[in-house]
Amino acid sequence: MSDTPARDLTDPDFRKGVLDVLGALAYGELVGFFAIVRDAEGAPEIGLRMRLAEVAVAEHSEYERLTGRISELGGDPEAVMEPFAESFDAWHQRTQPGSWHEGLMKVYTGNSLAADFYREIARYVDPETQQLVADVLGRGRHVEFAAGRLREAITQDQKIAGRLALFGRRMVGEALTQAQQVAADRDAMTALLMGGGPGGGGADLAELARMFARITQRHTERMEALGLSA
Amino acid sequence: MSDTPARDLTDPDFRKGVLDVLGALAYGELVGFFAIVRDAEGAPEIGLRMRLAEVAVAEHSEYERLTGRISELGGDPEAVMEPFAESFDAWHQRTQPGSWHEGLMKVYTGNSLAADFYREIARYVDPETQQLVADVLGRGRHVEFAAGRLREAITQDQKIAGRLALFGRRMVGEALTQAQQVAADRDAMTALLMGGGPGGGGADLAELARMFARITQRHTERMEALGLSA
Repeated sequence: MSDTPARDLTDPDFRKGVLDVLGALAYGELVGFFAIVRDAEGAPEIGLRMRLAEVAVAEHSEYERLTGRISELGGDPEAVMEPFAESFDAWHQRTQPGSWHEGLMKVYTGNSLAADFYREIARYVDPETQQLVADVLGRGRHVEFAAGRLREAITQDQKIAGRLALFGRRMVGEALTQAQQVAADRDAMTALLMGGGPGGGGADLAELARMFARITQRHTERMEALGLSA
Repeated sequence: MSDTPARDLTDPDFRKGVLDVLGALAYGELVGFFAIVRDAEGAPEIGLRMRLAEVAVAEHSEYERLTGRISELGGDPEAVMEPFAESFDAWHQRTQPGSWHEGLMKVYTGNSLAADFYREIARYVDPETQQLVADVLGRGRHVEFAAGRLREAITQDQKIAGRLALFGRRMVGEALTQAQQVAADRDAMTALLMGGGPGGGGADLAELARMFARITQRHTERMEALGLSA
C-alpha cells in the first residue's frame, strides 16, 4: 500500500472519505435527536421533558453544522447521509429503551459512544472539518445531567443497576456491529480512516480493531463511573 | 359584571390571566414539538425526516420565546405550564396518527388550530405579549409544506381522503373538548378572555361559544382547501 494519496480536499478520494465521515456523523445526530425527543416525551416530570427537549435541540444544531459543512464541500446532505441510514436505524431499532431509565441510559451512552467515534475519526479529516468535529464534541457536556440522574437511580435500586448494565452492554455491542458493517461497506471511509490506502489490508483491519478496543474500554470506564459492572 | 379590573400587568388578576395564556401556549408548543418529531421519525424518506425535524426545531424556538416571556413576567415556566399538561396530553393521546399521512395531517391541522386559538386569545393580553404571539404566529408558515404533501396524496387516492376527513374531524372535536375543559378549570384565564369579569356569566359563555364556532369555521375552510369534506 505505498500509493498513499495526498491528504488534501483537492484529492477526490480524500474528499469522498471526508464526506462519508460527515454523512455518518450528521445522520447519527439526526436520529440521535429523534431518540432524545422520544425520551423527553416519556419523561415522568415536566421539568425533565423541558430539559431533555433542550438537549435534543442542541443535538439538532450540531446536525445542522455538519450538514452545513457537507454543503460547503459540494455534497448534497441527503445523498451523503443516505448510505448510513440503515446502520443507524438498525442500531436504534435494536436498542429501544424499555423504561424511562433505559431511555436516559441511551441518551448518555449513545452520545458518549458517538463522541468516542468522532474523536477517533476526526484525526483523519481535513483541519477545518476537524475543528468542526471538535466544536461539536465540546458541546457534548449536555448529557452530564443524564449521568447524574442515572447515578442517583443506580445508588437507590440494585435491580435497576443490573438491568442498566445489561442494556449498556447491548448498546456498545450493537454499535460495534454496525460500525464494522459500515467499515465493510464504505470503501472511501475505510480508506480514509486506515491511512489513505485502498483499505482491506491486514494492517488496516488491525488498526480498526484497536480503535474498537479503545472505544469499548472508554465505555467500560463510563459504566464503572456510574456504579455499574460493564 | 361591572367591576372590570384594569387591563394592565400591575393588576395581579390580569397578570395571572396572561401567565395562564402563556403557559397554555408554551406547553402546546412543547408537546407540538414532540408530536412533529415523532412524525419526522416515521417519515418514509430521509429528505422528509430532515424537513420535519426543522419544522419541529422551529416549534421549539417558539416555545422558548414563550417561556422567556413567562420568566420576564416573574413566572416559573414549569409551574405555569403544569395546569395545562393534562388537557394537551389528552388531546395528543386521542389524536394519535395511524399512518404517515395522518401524522402529516396532525402537523398541519394541529398547528393551524393552535394558531387560530392564539389569534383569538392574543386580543386579550398586554401589548408586548400580543406582539410576541403575533411573531410566533407569523412563523407558522412552515406547515405549508405539510399541506402541499397532503393535497398531492388526496388528489391521488380517494380512500386516503375519506380517512383524513374523519381524522380532521376528530382533531377539531377533541380540541374543542379540551379547550372547554380548560375554560371551566382556569378561572383566571377565562376571566381574562371574557373581558375581565369574574367569568361564568351568560354573556361570557356565549362569547366563548362564538370563539369556538369561528375556530371550527376556519378548520372547515382549511379542510375544503385540501379537497376534503369537513
